[in-house]
Amino acid sequence: MPPRDPVQADIRALFKNLQDACRRKDLTDVMACYAPDIVAFDLMPPLATRGGEAYRKNWDEAFRMSEGPFEIEHRDLVIHASGDVAFAYALEHVRVKARPDNHEMDMWLRMTCGLRRIEGAWKIVHEQDSVPIDMKDDKPLWNLKPEALAA
Amino acid sequence: MPPRDPVQADIRALFKNLQDACRRKDLTDVMACYAPDIVAFDLMPPLATRGGEAYRKNWDEAFRMSEGPFEIEHRDLVIHASGDVAFAYALEHVRVKARPDNHEMDMWLRMTCGLRRIEGAWKIVHEQDSVPIDMKDDKPLWNLKPEALAA
Repeated sequence: MPPRDPVQADIRALFKNLQDACRRKDLTDVMACYAPDIVAFDLMPPLATRGGEAYRKNWDEAFRMSEGPFEIEHRDLVIHASGDVAFAYALEHVRVKARPDNHEMDMWLRMTCGLRRIEGAWKIVHEQDSVPIDMKDDKPLWNLKPEALAA
Repeated sequence: MPPRDPVQADIRALFKNLQDACRRKDLTDVMACYAPDIVAFDLMPPLATRGGEAYRKNWDEAFRMSEGPFEIEHRDLVIHASGDVAFAYALEHVRVKARPDNHEMDMWLRMTCGLRRIEGAWKIVHEQDSVPIDMKDDKPLWNLKPEALAA
């Protein structure tokens, strides 16, 4: 769909807000992207994180594990929307300086979001983030690159 | 939303079809649940598996790794739908006998799907599956249980 579709533009703006809030590590602005009853399947346990209060703690922990800006970028963002329901997915490029030694981390996650338009504003009501698993070595794969970048 | 909502019922029937097809390891019936241009963020690499032909190979590999039925169950399935767009998420209970020694595997994954109604039939156009990661040990967590079960 063309980017000038107003719903697509609104949802892209929401992810831009999320990126900007992460860069500033502004927990209030991060959580403003989510519905209060968000159910997240996060990178870290448990299986499901239920509610904004619990999910805010995950974000807080992620922010505290790094020094300086928390840079995320959504690549190949695809949005399907109808009425007040949408889903979106992207490869998520995360670049941070990890404490305590502030080594550069540069990794690609997969992000899938379910969204609803609530009182006129799109909010993320469900999110799953992950990396693939190397089944033989039983290890998460933090160093995978998108195919176009890997080529 | 009540289960007698016809759209909810149709989408629940699709996941029931997927469970039944997995039990029988019927690749044709499994792939009938997906749109031909499915984009999957699967448990195994790469970051993204694009298209039914590639995704069918992942399912085939998963089926070949186990002896007998491939049992999946979707717990706490939540569906949001509007018009011809929907998303759904659930905790996915997978029980298989893993080759070569046929030891019992009993694990919980997280599943998120984006769906579209195409020519009257709901199809999964996007799926992400994962387990959480233990960040300190850098290990995937295959043994987590849903909270109600863990209690």
